Order: sequence, then C-alpha cells, then structure tokens
Amino acid sequence: MPSTALCFSSRAEHRQWLATQAALPAGFRVGTARFGFTPREVPKPAEMTLSLIALDEPTPDFAAVFTRSAFPGAPVLIGRDRLAEPQLGAILVNNKISNVCAPDGRAASEAVCTRAGELLGLPSTAVLPSSTGVIGWSLPVEEMLAALPAAAAALQAESILPAAEGIVTTDLYPKVRAAAVGSGRIVGIAKGAGMLEPNLATMLVYLLTDVAVPREVLRAMLRRAVEPSFNSISIDSDTSTSDTVALVSSGRVPCADLGAFEAALAQVCADLAEDVVRNGEGVRHVIRVAVGGAANAAEARALGKVIVNAPLFKCAVAGNDPNVGRLIQAMGKWAPPGSSAGALAAGAESLSRLRLKMGGVEIFSNGVFQLDPQKEASLVAHLKSAELYESRPSTDGVYRAAVDYPPHERCVEIEIELSSGSGRAVVLGGDLTHEYVSENADYRS
Amino acid sequence: MPSTALCFSSRAEHRQWLATQAALPAGFRVGTARFGFTPREVPKPAEMTLSLIALDEPTPDFAAVFTRSAFPGAPVLIGRDRLAEPQLGAILVNNKISNVCAPDGRAASEAVCTRAGELLGLPSTAVLPSSTGVIGWSLPVEEMLAALPAAAAALQAESILPAAEGIVTTDLYPKVRAAAVGSGRIVGIAKGAGMLEPNLATMLVYLLTDVAVPREVLRAMLRRAVEPSFNSISIDSDTSTSDTVALVSSGRVPCADLGAFEAALAQVCADLAEDVVRNGEGVRHVIRVAVGGAANAAEARALGKVIVNAPLFKCAVAGNDPNVGRLIQAMGKWAPPGSSAGALAAGAESLSRLRLKMGGVEIFSNGVFQLDPQKEASLVAHLKSAELYESRPSTDGVYRAAVDYPPHERCVEIEIELSSGSGRAVVLGGDLTHEYVSENADYRS
Repeated sequence: MPSTALCFSSRAEHRQWLATQAALPAGFRVGTARFGFTPREVPKPAEMTLSLIALDEPTPDFAAVFTRSAFPGAPVLIGRDRLAEPQLGAILVNNKISNVCAPDGRAASEAVCTRAGELLGLPSTAVLPSSTGVIGWSLPVEEMLAALPAAAAALQAESILPAAEGIVTTDLYPKVRAAAVGSGRIVGIAKGAGMLEPNLATMLVYLLTDVAVPREVLRAMLRRAVEPSFNSISIDSDTSTSDTVALVSSGRVPCADLGAFEAALAQVCADLAEDVVRNGEGVRHVIRVAVGGAANAAEARALGKVIVNAPLFKCAVAGNDPNVGRLIQAMGKWAPPGSSAGALAAGAESLSRLRLKMGGVEIFSNGVFQLDPQKEASLVAHLKSAELYESRPSTDGVYRAAVDYPPHERCVEIEIELSSGSGRAVVLGGDLTHEYVSENADYRS
Repeated sequence: MPSTALCFSSRAEHRQWLATQAALPAGFRVGTARFGFTPREVPKPAEMTLSLIALDEPTPDFAAVFTRSAFPGAPVLIGRDRLAEPQLGAILVNNKISNVCAPDGRAASEAVCTRAGELLGLPSTAVLPSSTGVIGWSLPVEEMLAALPAAAAALQAESILPAAEGIVTTDLYPKVRAAAVGSGRIVGIAKGAGMLEPNLATMLVYLLTDVAVPREVLRAMLRRAVEPSFNSISIDSDTSTSDTVALVSSGRVPCADLGAFEAALAQVCADLAEDVVRNGEGVRHVIRVAVGGAANAAEARALGKVIVNAPLFKCAVAGNDPNVGRLIQAMGKWAPPGSSAGALAAGAESLSRLRLKMGGVEIFSNGVFQLDPQKEASLVAHLKSAELYESRPSTDGVYRAAVDYPPHERCVEIEIELSSGSGRAVVLGGDLTHEYVSENADYRS
C-alpha cells in the first residue's frame, strides 16, 4: 500500500488541510488540558498536555500493538493487560514524561486512569493509558489529577485535532490522516519524530472508526496493517520503550465490506507512517528503499532498514553527496558470509546478480559500480530535488528545521534488485543531519 | 588487557612522543610517495600516498585478518589468497580510493603488486596490497606505477612514522604504538576514523616485529588479540569493506617467551584500538562500556556495542546531557522478549537484577531508575570532564575538530551489571556530534 504523500506551500495551508481531515467518527469525543509542573529529578519548569479520547459508549471492539522493547513503559505493561478487558471507554495520553522504569510507575499510571474513569463513569480498567517523553522520570501524578477535570470539560465531538496537537513532543507538526469506508470513516493521529524504529508496533498512533468491526477481526487487521507501514520505517534505529498503536471502533456504522475497511486501514497506517518519517527529527531528505528479489519480505525489509540506518550513507544524503559506495558498504556489513542474509551472504555469485539504482539511474550491475561524471551530476540533482529545506545554523549555533509543514512529497529513491527470490519490501527513513544532532545534543531534554 | 591511554598538552608534544615509539624492528624498511591525480568517476584534483613496508628478507611468518563484509575490496580478496603463499616480502598501502567493487579492481591491485615486486626483487605474490578511501572508484593504476620507484627509493630502516602518516584519510593524527619483548619489539600503526565497526577484523593495522614466532602460532595469536581490541570498538556501526590487520615477523630476534610476546601483542592491539576511537570521526567523548554478568563474553560485547551505537544516547553524551533513560532504551531495543539476548530478554525478572552506573554513580537498581538532582549534577560534571574539546562551528558553518592530538585519557564510564552469568566485556565508542555530520555531509568526498 503506497502512502499518499502530501505537499503544501505554507504552514497555514497545511493546518487548514489537517482540519478538513480531523472530523471525528460518530461516537467519539476529544478534550485536552495543558499545565505546568516541575519534574522531581531535574527541577526546572516543564509543561505537559493531557489528551483524552472518550467513547460515548464503551466498546468491546478495540485493538492495540505495543513496543517489543525489553524495558517497556508502565503504560505499555498496563495496556497489554487492558487487551483482556471486556470493554474500552477512553484513552488518556500524556507527553513530556514516558513513565518508563520510574519508581512506582505502574501505580502512577493506574491512579490517573482511575480519576479519568471517575470523571467519565468508567471503571479504571476501561481506560487505556499512554505516555511519551523523557525515560526514567516520574509522572507528576498530583498535577495530572488536578488537570483531568479540565480535559474532561473540554470534550467535544467535532475534531481530533486537539489530540493530534496534544500528544506531540519534538514533532514539527501534528499528523492526521483519514479515509472513508462506506458511510463511516477511519481517522488516525500519530506522534513521533525521534527514538523511532518501531519493532512490531510503533510510536503513539490512535486510529478511531465508527465502522463496526468485531474485536478479533479488528485485532488481526491491525497486526497486518502495521507490518508494511509502521514496522517499515526508521528515523534513527532507536526503538522506543513506549510504542503503541491503538485502533478503536465505536460500532456506530454497520460494516458492509470488511475488505474495503481493511484497505482503508492499511492506507491510513501507510500515510501516517510516511508523515512520521517526513517529520522525523532532523530529517531533510526522506529516503525510500525498494528492495526486490529477496528470499522473503522479512529479508527485504531487513536490508531496507540497514540502509536507512547506516550513518555514513545518511550523512552523504544530508550533504547531497551521491557517495553510493556507502550503499554497498552498508549492505556488506549486514550480510557477512555465512550469515542468515541469504540473498547477499553467498558472496561473489550474488554480487553478480545485484542491481542498484538511485533516482532511476543504474549505479551498480554485473558485480561492479557503473559510474561516470554524467551520472554523478544527475545523482546530485536527484538528491537536491528531494531536499525538504536547506541546512543553516541559527545565530546561536543551533540548527533548527526551516519548515514546519511538508513542503513536497519527493524522496531519495533507492532501488535494490537482488534477483534471488520473490521477497519485496519498501522501507522509509531519513538522512542524518546537523538538525538531528542539535535536537538531541544542543538542547537539554 | 586495558589500553594505555595517552594524554598530551600539544600537537608538538604528541608528535615527539610518536617519533620515540616509531623505531622499526630489525629487518624492516619503510618508504612513501605522494602524488596528484584525477579520479575517473568524479574528475576533480585528488592526492594519494603510497606507503611501502619492505622486509630485508621475505618471511614465512605473517598473519592477517580481514573484514567480514559481504562486499570486500579487491585488496582484501587478494590478501586472503596471499595467506596461502610461502612468503611475504612487502606490504603496499594506498589511501584515497579503497578499490571496492570497481571495474577490473583485482587486476589493478595485482598490477601495482607486480611493479612493487619488480622494484624489490620479489614475486608479486609476496606483496600484500591494501587500499582505503572512496568505495566504488577505480585505482589510478598508471599514476601509481609511476610513483612506485619514488616510494622504493625512500625506503629507510629507522622509523615507521612515514607509513603511519601515509595511510591516513580523515584521521586527525597518526597512530603508533610499540612494546618491547625481550631484546626484540613490536611496533604497530593504524588508520581509521570512520566507517568503523570492525567485524572479525578491522580498519588498516600493520604490526611489525623482529621477534621470531612461527607462522601458525602468529596467526592464532592475532586471532585472539583482535577480539578484545579491534573487535570491541565502534565509531559509527558502519563496518568497512577494507578492514585489514596484518602482523609480520622478520624473525631476527629469537623468541624466549611466547607468553610475553602474546601479552605485548595484546597490549599494542588494545592501545591502537583505543587510539582509533579517541581519534574517531567527530568523537568528542570516548565512551567506555564495561558489561559484567552476561551469559558469555559475546553477549556482553554485543550489549556494549548496542550502547556505543545508539544515536540518541550518543547525541546526549555529545551535549553533556546525562539522559540515562536512553541507556535503558538502547538496551531494551536489543533484547526484545524471546530474542537470543539471554540476560535481558527474560524481562521483569532480569530487570530487577540489572545495575547501571555512570561515572561511578548508581543510576539504576531494583528495577527502577535511582535519580535525583544531586546525581544529575555529578553526571553532568562527569560528562564535561570527559569532553575532548568544545564544539564550535567555523565561520563557514562547518564543524571541525578543535584538537589534532589526544588531550586527555578520560572516558565516559558506563558500568552494566546483568548478574545472570560470568560473561564480561569492555567496549569503546564515541559520541555523535556536529563534527561527525560535518565530516561526512558538509564536505564532498
């Protein structure tokens, strides 16, 4: 399912479009509340937003997948338990602190769920908690309990946009995607910009629908939808401890066509995944790697990931430098002889079948590079055309993104044909830039 | 074998010390030649240095290990064949172009070996070729053949320093380490700054000794020496296509104590490995991760590698930001439940045994972080003390290293105790900085 990329000429135009996508499906309400507090571990002023997504009636039809990190956050541990509950009535998300390995973290999340449940007339077990932000710090439970009534009072049934804005951390812009299914619809929002190589789940994504799809069918569909979307992207190889994708149906609109629903779900997931990459921390070029001819789809995806995670190739892309040798280098480190990387580990024989293209230009075939000054010039032009904005430090020496909307939909296009099987995959990633380092080193979190 | 780190107050002091280490063992001569040329693929002026290491008499006692990349360079393919030859008489190294997957690359390397052999009275099969630099470009064979007589004419028996300087690319300074063994000695040089996570071998390292050690013993010792040294470091996770470690004995000094020789070899390898990291591309903090209590040494090393390769943790270190949550995040992504990472994949149970220290300060125990404002302040001080130089862009916006010698020997010290076995390892790596991005994006290679 290729994603539908977006292209805007200004922030205002982008925000206007988001508003058109953000209409809530029937049966949902959204409210947020923002407040200041002082973290216990590093006492300096901070702000947090609570985003509350409530169903008019609790539903048995919900699904979620979570990070496979060995050290998941308390909300993820609780969320896994919630999957066994008969009904879900609300989702409560906070940013700023992710509540991972913090003392009494589970009790803190449960306390907030309990209060949210009281306000909504739900048992705490019908509230799914989610947190994102600094790892290791403790949630400011008192302040969150005090802010919850304001979030509940703000609930409205028109737009998901307040939640799309409320769940972000280092994101440059909110992410909303929607699809119609018969007379119903799916609307999804995503948070994610860094610490992002989902492993069987991803960042924070909430997908709401009014189309009635039974719980078990919904869960199977979600598992299938995340593989080619959220599980096929990487900003920085750093899988998060908080990744969560939740899908909730209010059941208001009968489902006439399950196939159409699944296709729409796949499209929304693919679109949000691309949004997340295009808005990745410091990303100035989106890199799309299409791998074909692998032993199977998993191997094709693994090879694509190796390339979008290779620091030297990512830096070359950032500099509009077609240093294509670094593509071979990245592939070579992934597939030492005797490794499980079947298509490449065979060595010279497989090398002779390998074909590489960048921007449609053949750069490798018959076991050797096919380079000349004309190709070099067209590769440079391809890289420049895919640049989202030019890199320039601010007067304080910090590099900040120059746009806070997606100015075009172009990618650095890498095509890899292994010719040793029928496995295919498309993986999205970004370059490695001064803006990424500034985001993660120049500011104290 | 802990490395002997170095500490200098100026470039001049460092260069003076290098000269004292650089005396050649008996039976070796070194000469270099530098020349300009125009690469075929990107026609703009470039310079190359040929470094020739010659034995007075060919020796059967030599060893080498090479990269495990699936796409090794032509010199690596030839080098593997050379291991079967009865004798080695010379090593010829060029920088600037690595001769990887270039059309007719093998013939190009063999042509250069043949000419070097003619000049030295050796068959071409007694010459070991090595190349480092841009991947995918072709060697300038004509220019190299024309420059070889000058390298041969420059051969001298006093110092290895010309070769240590001749083999570098983006290195800030040459690397020479030596050890005495009875009345003989071992001297080693290394090239390496980026594209550096050796896999069963490493960058370019040449170890020369006059101590007589038989070929098979030498080879076994080299295999053992590289594991805790070159195979326990990573600058950027990008394993090179050209990694080579060669060890050659002229046999001039009888070996009285094989154990002492092996210990000296291990020390020189550990020292050069630390030099390589401290001089890594953009490295402003060396990170030393000591892992204990793993199932075995391989698992301990793998966990150390995960941490020194985690972009977000590396950025935090660059910014003197003790964002220790990113340590847990990196460990968590490596060990999803059910993975082969035994010590951590067990989840909550293993988490309760985990202890983490940074700069000697306990930051994690009993399953949760142990953080407070006082610890935060001492972690910041530890990070600042380990900084090699302050980051500052030049007037052209490019970040360049502010020192070209090792100004101190301090590391960011991470201690991880898994308490689930007896496997231990120490891994060295660096931070992720603006200087790394500038080196690999702001300049065209």
